[in-house]
Amino acid sequence: MHTHGGPLTQLRRGHEESVLGLLRRHGPQSRAELGRRVGLSRTTLYDIVATLVASGAVVSSAADAGPRRRGRPVERLSLDPSAGQAVGVDFARRAVHVAAANVAHEVTGSASAAHPAGLSWRRRVALAEELVGSVAGKTLRLTTLGTAGAVGVGVVGPVRLTGEGHVPDGPLADLAELLGERFGAPVLLDNNTRLAALAECSWGAAAGSRDVLYLRLSHGVGGGLVVNGSLHRGVDGLAGEFGHITAEPGGRPCECGGSGCLETVASVGAVLDAYRAGGGRADDVDTLLAAAAAGDRVALRVLEAAGTRTGAVLASVVNAVGPLVIVLGGELAAAGDALLGPVGRALDAHVLPLARDGVTLRRAALGEAAGALGGVALALHESPLLARYPGADDLEEAL
Amino acid sequence: MHTHGGPLTQLRRGHEESVLGLLRRHGPQSRAELGRRVGLSRTTLYDIVATLVASGAVVSSAADAGPRRRGRPVERLSLDPSAGQAVGVDFARRAVHVAAANVAHEVTGSASAAHPAGLSWRRRVALAEELVGSVAGKTLRLTTLGTAGAVGVGVVGPVRLTGEGHVPDGPLADLAELLGERFGAPVLLDNNTRLAALAECSWGAAAGSRDVLYLRLSHGVGGGLVVNGSLHRGVDGLAGEFGHITAEPGGRPCECGGSGCLETVASVGAVLDAYRAGGGRADDVDTLLAAAAAGDRVALRVLEAAGTRTGAVLASVVNAVGPLVIVLGGELAAAGDALLGPVGRALDAHVLPLARDGVTLRRAALGEAAGALGGVALALHESPLLARYPGADDLEEAL
Repeated sequence: MHTHGGPLTQLRRGHEESVLGLLRRHGPQSRAELGRRVGLSRTTLYDIVATLVASGAVVSSAADAGPRRRGRPVERLSLDPSAGQAVGVDFARRAVHVAAANVAHEVTGSASAAHPAGLSWRRRVALAEELVGSVAGKTLRLTTLGTAGAVGVGVVGPVRLTGEGHVPDGPLADLAELLGERFGAPVLLDNNTRLAALAECSWGAAAGSRDVLYLRLSHGVGGGLVVNGSLHRGVDGLAGEFGHITAEPGGRPCECGGSGCLETVASVGAVLDAYRAGGGRADDVDTLLAAAAAGDRVALRVLEAAGTRTGAVLASVVNAVGPLVIVLGGELAAAGDALLGPVGRALDAHVLPLARDGVTLRRAALGEAAGALGGVALALHESPLLARYPGADDLEEAL
Repeated sequence: MHTHGGPLTQLRRGHEESVLGLLRRHGPQSRAELGRRVGLSRTTLYDIVATLVASGAVVSSAADAGPRRRGRPVERLSLDPSAGQAVGVDFARRAVHVAAANVAHEVTGSASAAHPAGLSWRRRVALAEELVGSVAGKTLRLTTLGTAGAVGVGVVGPVRLTGEGHVPDGPLADLAELLGERFGAPVLLDNNTRLAALAECSWGAAAGSRDVLYLRLSHGVGGGLVVNGSLHRGVDGLAGEFGHITAEPGGRPCECGGSGCLETVASVGAVLDAYRAGGGRADDVDTLLAAAAAGDRVALRVLEAAGTRTGAVLASVVNAVGPLVIVLGGELAAAGDALLGPVGRALDAHVLPLARDGVTLRRAALGEAAGALGGVALALHESPLLARYPGADDLEEAL
């Protein structure tokens, strides 16, 4: 199985990422410039640069020697934008979505393919490989992944993570192993709704915000919490279960075994049930949303009720973890103001006044690619190898 | 004002803390051994060691040269346990509490003094200085603080923190300045209930746990959230307001402007009101708790009602941020099982089953010194200078 390797490997990859980070931020530069910024010994720096050049992530070229320069030309190092660094894969229930980013951290493409529910993992992985190949095509070399890259993978349902390397337990460990073999790079797995949260925070409705709550109102209700720019997983990776916060004490029984959970009042099914109980006719969420858009009072009332309870639940999270940008996604968020209006009013009513100004409510901006984009973000920013490592950032800012 | 200084100062102090950390974990060692572990250039290491020796935090002594050794004896460096590194001060409403720790991160003592409510800040700071002097006495030299130490300070009420250095805004900035002048060291301020959370997590009921929710049921209801070993502050430092999560939709008005907040059902005042409304007689919390201990049904019922609502609110936090050790403190926690029993049952009823096994409920272990001890913990572990700095920890573990 491809893991992150021992601490020595991690240390080495941390150094590699430091060097890549400096090239990303400061553009092409000489070994001497890199050396001044990176804070590594000369021997280590030369060794790391040699590995990166050999992998193809970094290219070395002779700089223009000015007219007065003498001696051999100064070599300059730069990133090769055709070198891939991160692949994101979202294994949704009936589709595989992928996205890829280069060593400059630019998303270079994404692709999706639908498939029947219940397709075997082996075939879904093969589909993912094919899609990644099509995204990369001639513009991205994924052979560089193994050196300083990673694959971020989203799956449906809770992902228990143990240890440092985002290694899941149970059958997902087999999936991680299979993917690791195919891509020749470390695999980071997480729940795909949480990855969507990370994507909204990196490139979507909450881009630039470091504290974000993403809530997905779909057939199920789930979400993700980004704290200080990182996906918050909690012990065992069991954070972000906003769908199972009690919204209605003593309310309807929930699949989780509890009762009155947010999922029992603000999921697609719950809202459709309430609409029909009020005399409305709709078999799917699009019909309900169309009715609301046309001013159907029953539709507006059930959306308002769901939104009000959703806002109250969100307020409890805000009071616990502090002000946030709140991003609403999922099919119900497409209702727009008919849902976001009551959510916002309930937030105002329940959030501690001191924190109220710090809460912003937005509709999700990324579509079905959010999970795969989140996989890319996970690989780029959350890998214990690539991010939060004592890197060059702190040093260079100090010097 | 004493601040953490510019990035260069921070870098230097990070290096100092790396060296101190190695001496703390590995005991006395030679410069050469330090050099192999610390990952700093030889020049930088010698410079940092010279500063630490000059400050008195580190002592240098000639090691026993074995019988076959020749040449000059190898110098060994070690921590001086009489060198102070952290001072914690808790400015409670009617008392000042202090605690101090040495450079080996051992708490060397704590002290308290009561004072009339409304005492001026200048006099409270003088009282703190006096108490710190008495704690340090002849056993701790606080002159070393300025080099690699810090003062962690707890105050009543919300503390808005801006920027990296835990610099508060408003009148608290003046307090931080005054304390910085007196102690000649960087000052980190935070709410004292949050500091109690950090202390419980460092030395109290949740020692050794990295994800901890501390809830204080007192005249007010507040708390603190420790996530992955660090106090979670949220944007602007406004996290942990568990007292203002809605516990009873449409319930009693709360001082915060909302209604039905946990504080309106589980504070000392709310529980006493409920007890009296049920026919009980008690002017203070001790009388109520004594009645409950004696089997008074009304007392037990009001504690059960408060505990049940508290547990439901805590469950919403657990479902959002993941499994936690939950520590209950404040006067009401002294009720023991009469309160913790219903809290635990409500948690079980509302926490997502998958996460249920991960939740542990405990009574707070530290008394009134918790805030000051939390100040010490803040100074030792949360200072941007001393902790989470790209330090020797990672390197040495890899080597």
